[in-house]
Amino acid sequence: MDSVTKSLHSLSLNSTLVNHSNTNSPAAWRDALTASSESPSSFELIKTLVYKPKTAKTATPVPVVVIARESASVNSGAIGKKLNLKELRLASEDLLKEFFCLDKDSLSPLALNETNFSKVTTVVDASIATLSTPLGLHALSSSSTAFLSSSDLLQYLRHLETEEVKLHELDLQNLETAAPAAASSKAPPKEKETAKIEGAPQIAIGVKKEVDFPTWYTNVLLKADMLDYYNVSGCYILKPWSFSIWEAIQRWFDAEIKELGVQNSYFPMFVSSKVLEREKDHIEGFSPEVAWVTKAGNSDLEEPIAIRPTSETVMYPYYAKWIQSHRDLPLKLNQWNSVVRWEFKNPQPFLRTREFLWQEGHTAHLTKEEADVEVRQILELYRRIYEELLAVPVIPGIKSEKEKFAGGLYTTTVEGFIPTTGRGIQGATSHCLGQNFSRPEMFNIVVEDPTDPTNQRKTYVWQNSWGLSTRVIGVMVMVHGDNQGLVLPPRVASIQVVIVPCGITVNTSDEIRSKIEGACDDLAKTLKKAGLRVKADLRDDKTPGYKFNDWEQKGVPLRLEIGPNDLAKQQTLAVRRDSGLKSPVALENISSTVSELLDTIQSDMLKRAQETYQSRLQEVTKWEDVVPTLDGKNVVVLPWCEREACEDDIKERSAKASEPTDERAPSAGAKSLCIPFDQSRWTPIEPGKTKCPACGNDAKRWTMFGRSY
Amino acid sequence: MDSVTKSLHSLSLNSTLVNHSNTNSPAAWRDALTASSESPSSFELIKTLVYKPKTAKTATPVPVVVIARESASVNSGAIGKKLNLKELRLASEDLLKEFFCLDKDSLSPLALNETNFSKVTTVVDASIATLSTPLGLHALSSSSTAFLSSSDLLQYLRHLETEEVKLHELDLQNLETAAPAAASSKAPPKEKETAKIEGAPQIAIGVKKEVDFPTWYTNVLLKADMLDYYNVSGCYILKPWSFSIWEAIQRWFDAEIKELGVQNSYFPMFVSSKVLEREKDHIEGFSPEVAWVTKAGNSDLEEPIAIRPTSETVMYPYYAKWIQSHRDLPLKLNQWNSVVRWEFKNPQPFLRTREFLWQEGHTAHLTKEEADVEVRQILELYRRIYEELLAVPVIPGIKSEKEKFAGGLYTTTVEGFIPTTGRGIQGATSHCLGQNFSRPEMFNIVVEDPTDPTNQRKTYVWQNSWGLSTRVIGVMVMVHGDNQGLVLPPRVASIQVVIVPCGITVNTSDEIRSKIEGACDDLAKTLKKAGLRVKADLRDDKTPGYKFNDWEQKGVPLRLEIGPNDLAKQQTLAVRRDSGLKSPVALENISSTVSELLDTIQSDMLKRAQETYQSRLQEVTKWEDVVPTLDGKNVVVLPWCEREACEDDIKERSAKASEPTDERAPSAGAKSLCIPFDQSRWTPIEPGKTKCPACGNDAKRWTMFGRSY
Repeated sequence: MDSVTKSLHSLSLNSTLVNHSNTNSPAAWRDALTASSESPSSFELIKTLVYKPKTAKTATPVPVVVIARESASVNSGAIGKKLNLKELRLASEDLLKEFFCLDKDSLSPLALNETNFSKVTTVVDASIATLSTPLGLHALSSSSTAFLSSSDLLQYLRHLETEEVKLHELDLQNLETAAPAAASSKAPPKEKETAKIEGAPQIAIGVKKEVDFPTWYTNVLLKADMLDYYNVSGCYILKPWSFSIWEAIQRWFDAEIKELGVQNSYFPMFVSSKVLEREKDHIEGFSPEVAWVTKAGNSDLEEPIAIRPTSETVMYPYYAKWIQSHRDLPLKLNQWNSVVRWEFKNPQPFLRTREFLWQEGHTAHLTKEEADVEVRQILELYRRIYEELLAVPVIPGIKSEKEKFAGGLYTTTVEGFIPTTGRGIQGATSHCLGQNFSRPEMFNIVVEDPTDPTNQRKTYVWQNSWGLSTRVIGVMVMVHGDNQGLVLPPRVASIQVVIVPCGITVNTSDEIRSKIEGACDDLAKTLKKAGLRVKADLRDDKTPGYKFNDWEQKGVPLRLEIGPNDLAKQQTLAVRRDSGLKSPVALENISSTVSELLDTIQSDMLKRAQETYQSRLQEVTKWEDVVPTLDGKNVVVLPWCEREACEDDIKERSAKASEPTDERAPSAGAKSLCIPFDQSRWTPIEPGKTKCPACGNDAKRWTMFGRSY
Repeated sequence: MDSVTKSLHSLSLNSTLVNHSNTNSPAAWRDALTASSESPSSFELIKTLVYKPKTAKTATPVPVVVIARESASVNSGAIGKKLNLKELRLASEDLLKEFFCLDKDSLSPLALNETNFSKVTTVVDASIATLSTPLGLHALSSSSTAFLSSSDLLQYLRHLETEEVKLHELDLQNLETAAPAAASSKAPPKEKETAKIEGAPQIAIGVKKEVDFPTWYTNVLLKADMLDYYNVSGCYILKPWSFSIWEAIQRWFDAEIKELGVQNSYFPMFVSSKVLEREKDHIEGFSPEVAWVTKAGNSDLEEPIAIRPTSETVMYPYYAKWIQSHRDLPLKLNQWNSVVRWEFKNPQPFLRTREFLWQEGHTAHLTKEEADVEVRQILELYRRIYEELLAVPVIPGIKSEKEKFAGGLYTTTVEGFIPTTGRGIQGATSHCLGQNFSRPEMFNIVVEDPTDPTNQRKTYVWQNSWGLSTRVIGVMVMVHGDNQGLVLPPRVASIQVVIVPCGITVNTSDEIRSKIEGACDDLAKTLKKAGLRVKADLRDDKTPGYKFNDWEQKGVPLRLEIGPNDLAKQQTLAVRRDSGLKSPVALENISSTVSELLDTIQSDMLKRAQETYQSRLQEVTKWEDVVPTLDGKNVVVLPWCEREACEDDIKERSAKASEPTDERAPSAGAKSLCIPFDQSRWTPIEPGKTKCPACGNDAKRWTMFGRSY
């Protein structure tokens, strides 16, 4: 019996121990448990935060240990106020080691014992007592979890109390609302509701998007059957419901790039270290995340082989071989594949995963002009994928020097925005690599210059690379999803219309029942013939209400209901997923009515999202407005000097300015998102007159700054 | 300066040293050198074979060292006869170590020195002296190669000669033809020509398919621009010319399986060792070839993670989770991905590569009947890919117990045939896994049995898995290619028709020239409109002859030539790639004429290949006919007992029976290829009467046995 179980057992407390892979973040922890067949089917995780109050340097600190639900937002300021302690700051790893001999990923209430309890102040969230699901606690290790009931957890903590040292049971949720509100007048009013949606049926999302966005996001993905967690951390299974979206994007983009003369190919996933490390700047951007194969069967490989994080250095040695003459240009290759970047940060489905699907285009041109044109052609296709297929607005622009692709000349991007968090998100990038990879000391991709009459002059080719990944799906979910679940734009929905028979009760005659089901079936056939993607949901073990919920969760754009009355009137009730609007529609000419309705849904979704994005793009010209505007979940647009030092400075100052409260949602500094190509929407910059609000130097162009993913 | 260079230098001989990755086969060696930019643009490899003659056990053996061109076929019997030595057998690794302190992959003529030269008999192929390209020799290491001229090599060898011990310069080619012919009367007459095609233009294949098939194969792939070698051994680059064939197959098959209700998805490429090793029989088939990731960035992973060699164990834990009710069945998922099997045998493009592209379908059914039906539906689609798309005949059947998929219930297959080598090749397989993966001690994929009125009985799902890989492309090349290069079946050719302007000379007026080019362009447009894939080759720096060769090498099914006379007659000269047949075709109704011609080419290609396959399927009922029939490049069809012990025995006896001559083409034993579903083409088996010719037991079904890939 392990020590944790033993010590609980000695108090007659029951726990179940689950071993899993090592986890270094709350998300990874949840992933590992969700993937394990030994975990309870539902559970709540308990986090243990340790703060150090400000004390005289010579005094021994008395750390504050806060035990709370993983999803709870912990306001250390309010706790400090309550306990009459100053400036609680998250404790360093050293302090954790000193007091508990554990790191933060192993820490749990079970680390408190008779020896250390008296040396710390212990706070437990009072709401834990009300939980009925099993609670997951680190079993003094980041790779095993003990599950126990809330009463057992409290009993464990209480047995440590002494005459002198008591447990502090605080209602953290109410503490928080009692704390002073954020400074900015632009901040939307703080939600006072809890994340749980009252009375939500079992199958609904269960958590509000506006209140607990991360949990909402993963719940939507799971409940809409988009993906499942996988037992290798940071990797996810793309189920057909999400993969079909990727297929729709592939079909469209693949046809478009072929029109531009791009051909598909496949280069191996393996790269030798020598080749990978050829371009120093480039590899510096990737090396901490490269996965290395070192063994095959039982044999060690002679030298480790990397799995491609991207394919520039994989492909360009061969470009050098294949391109012998200007007649071999342009060379335009693309591949649809997966790449691996072994990130150690919190994984997030679609947005940050260790393996992800993408396309990567790699082209070589004779002139910079040609390369420049293609960079923008591709970026325009990316914009159209977001806006026309996914109904997600993006802003095309160029990245700052600091944010451009490592090793490239310049990077263009389409920048998206997640209104709920107020953060920017990079949508897809199209890079001009210039001659950085073709120059002689690199891959030496060279042809004779056809414009030189002496045939003596050589010219190094101009290269581009461009990529779009499955991240697009995550962005779409975040932008359009709501508290009922996913909302799919019709153009990428694998089912655009679901038909549900209604109004059938125990009293309905078999004849009517089969008439209604027949009508649903006929309608499905009619719409399919018109090229629409339709499903008649004739499951006989589910109620219409269940089906409504089910398809709403999965985001099907349009529901058509047919009941006895509809049948009599030769109509169907159309219910839009995006707006909830219901309207009866005649069965006559139904195909064109539905087609048009789907088009309307598609364009309404984009329009609404555009309006939101617009309203959160805030022109700011005074430094003091920057942080409050960011805190109000906006992107600030500054007349910027474009100096890298200034960008570093903005990031640092905007991070410091907002108070850190919780390791789970660190308030990051703002970085530059992009310099929009379309500058016309902002007050014209007067050269030499308009100043950068961050540093006072001359402003060059309006630049979007924001917190970001 | 290294020791090799130094010792050559001391004799005033020049050599260039190229370092490369470790190579353990002639193909890998060639790969590594082709991939290196330091290698000469053309070269010939030199192999060094060591034989041990039969001697008295007490005598010290005098090994025979044979130095020959890598492509030469070495007849050890004939050499022994010439030197008056008995029973030359390839020497063991131990003997190589003893005499040269080297393994076979490092051995080279440079291993001969003043000390050991007198202890061996050295034979050098006289034809080496005639070679003018640089010769590649292992520089006493499998990871570096010395290039030197043939005269320098001979000078090196000659300086070792003493009064007593001389070099034997033998004409191995003529020795060989002087040796007794193979026993079988069924063997086609032995080619006496050398592999090099006399007078072949620079850009042609250069080597005859019938004479040096392996070199022909790689030359065709390289010259047709299908693939390139890659600097990680066993991995290849699929260039657009081959990848587009894969895309055509994907498009067709993907649409067909979607009709069957299969959905696409994506599972991660990584598998934890625990999950991978869950099914013992299954993993035993793969474990020696699994690639392991053990590091990310600079950190060692806590436990190694495998790259999927196939996805049964990746997917089925989730099938167990997702399948909760018989209403969740059938579950039919497919993915298009790459898998890794780190083979240590000779790699061969498309046929045996360390990473390859495929699709893998994984389905779960309520009943065995349903699973059985699907296994055959999918196999039929595979047959159609081979026969209808690639014009490659295959024979559908079932695998023997010994050859079935590890861990499955039974395996069905479509078996192809490579006439040039007389070897069978597995085309694609569709497996019924039975309940082997679903049973409780495995993945426990279980539902309540809907046919049980008490709702008590459980039933474990029936599973299938099925896969088709890029190997199909290799088979197509081997079957259809000829001494001009690739021959593409029209249905998968990315360019079906090439139009070449002809008859333009220096005397042709600009007007006529532009008229001809205009006519080519117009013709291309007309055919494109009709949905054909066409290219007008208007390159002005290439002659028509060059273009003919170029497109013939690349296998374009049809060439249309337009010259001044054609223009006058409103016709074009159509030249078929498959048959070489030329015929003038009127420009009137050209689209339908060309469409029909392409259909004819497609069906003629299949018909010819079918006739060949048929003629090489030999019904054999006496054991003594088995080996001669195999040696005659046939597949034997035996009335077989279907016992595993008998299969092992057939393999062993058919291997022993034919004499080994060269490590490069070991004469393998025959294994069972498949038991054809269609038994009607052979004499009916009389139960209890017809006997298995191998063991005399009762025969069950006609079974194909052959040497194979």
